[in-house]
Amino acid sequence: MLSKNKVNQLCSLHQKKGRNLQNLFIAEGQKLVQDLLVSDLRVMEVYFVEDGKLELGSKLGLDSKFELDRLSYFVEIAAEDMKKISALTTPTNCLAVVEIPDYVLDKQALLGKLSLVVEDVRDPGNLGTIIRIADWFGIDELICSAETVDCYNPKVVQATMGSIARVKVHYLDLVKFITEFKGVKEMNGGRSKGLGNTSFEIYGTLMDGERIDGVKLSDKGLIVIGNEGRGISDALQGLLTKKISIPRFGHVEPKRGQAESLNAAVATALVCAEFRRG
Amino acid sequence: MLSKNKVNQLCSLHQKKGRNLQNLFIAEGQKLVQDLLVSDLRVMEVYFVEDGKLELGSKLGLDSKFELDRLSYFVEIAAEDMKKISALTTPTNCLAVVEIPDYVLDKQALLGKLSLVVEDVRDPGNLGTIIRIADWFGIDELICSAETVDCYNPKVVQATMGSIARVKVHYLDLVKFITEFKGVKEMNGGRSKGLGNTSFEIYGTLMDGERIDGVKLSDKGLIVIGNEGRGISDALQGLLTKKISIPRFGHVEPKRGQAESLNAAVATALVCAEFRRG
Repeated sequence: MLSKNKVNQLCSLHQKKGRNLQNLFIAEGQKLVQDLLVSDLRVMEVYFVEDGKLELGSKLGLDSKFELDRLSYFVEIAAEDMKKISALTTPTNCLAVVEIPDYVLDKQALLGKLSLVVEDVRDPGNLGTIIRIADWFGIDELICSAETVDCYNPKVVQATMGSIARVKVHYLDLVKFITEFKGVKEMNGGRSKGLGNTSFEIYGTLMDGERIDGVKLSDKGLIVIGNEGRGISDALQGLLTKKISIPRFGHVEPKRGQAESLNAAVATALVCAEFRRG
Repeated sequence: MLSKNKVNQLCSLHQKKGRNLQNLFIAEGQKLVQDLLVSDLRVMEVYFVEDGKLELGSKLGLDSKFELDRLSYFVEIAAEDMKKISALTTPTNCLAVVEIPDYVLDKQALLGKLSLVVEDVRDPGNLGTIIRIADWFGIDELICSAETVDCYNPKVVQATMGSIARVKVHYLDLVKFITEFKGVKEMNGGRSKGLGNTSFEIYGTLMDGERIDGVKLSDKGLIVIGNEGRGISDALQGLLTKKISIPRFGHVEPKRGQAESLNAAVATALVCAEFRRG
């Protein structure tokens, strides 16, 4: 049985304060734990319930891909203990405790690829889905404003379906970052070196932007995703170099209040798909 | 103050059983209530909190578009009563009670347009987002399996952001419906009459389907959306006439467990966008 102290320590990881103090986060479910075990992240502990559905050897990737010595603990617990430490309404049969990675943002590398910039997305499900979309479309860096929901929030981690193990998420002051970044870009002559001949742009989706299916899209740049309710802030809008929009079907003016907007994650997916159309 | 009976009656609408018994559902927030008031749905009651932010006349659309006599009740209540009847963690300043519409599915009309078929989508946020996406892309009918989450569940209604007022949702036995529908289609010679020259297809997204960006897509047909975990069932797969897939970027085989799938609503958006590309 888990000690009361251990339960408290693990439960404190449900909150941002506890995660920051311990520099740890939790991830639940076999698929997610497996993805983390084979990733570059450091899995510190795995708690599991032997329910007949879990095969620790092969299913958790312990046979071939996984180096056992990276784990300090691999602990079998009772279902009632899992209930205590889980952040899910319906707990699964395993929970991993993972070190929060210390990613360094390489601005020069950013010049050669497409990355997402996320401004103040508040809903954990939305941020998790955006991370999953980035992974699907081969985008490996996300730069978030400080006000964006914490990507190690258990609800975000679950919604990524494992993509949190592969996409690097940074938290920064976005106005400062993009302003400085534009300086780096100028030093490189406004173009990234030796990586094709499309220029680097800072894109953002706005109601009055140019229809995305009519714009020549670069394979290098930043795509800014705005907040769920108010979109991209004025401060960031001023830093965009290309304003784009997602066409609504049929009506330029929405018919009797036809959908005015799309969910933030859905809009991200539609924009990324257009960039990756090739 | 609302009577205890009234509070109980309204709270019972948070559950499917209560909604079916009373043939009513609830919708919360000014945007959603406004969209419902100007729609063809019957709003039976509106409860509001006078918090200084609500202007009942113009903001609720009562001035021009709205016929006052459709409402039997328009009731000012205290914030504490709103807290009791609301299904939201953070209640808003208005809540509408709406009659569940009795839509009749017109199979002949379906032959001339694009509609969505939803199989066993369980997450309320996903179904709500799918309804919002349908609205954005000018798709006005959704045919759901009986096991799909109830579209009048408060969480679904909120996630539609008002689109529930414009998209018609039907619940049917899908295998029976599509089998019969194929019969109707045959009677029409496999093509719908006088509506362009593309044929009617039953599409579904599968891992091994043809890349959607390489397929000639019809502007008439059914698009089947599968369950979040297991996709489209074998029974429905057997009834598809075109199997399509959404291309993942970069790798045919996912790299070290790269995202294997997309969220159901995200996949729906990507497919609809491709159909509406024109």
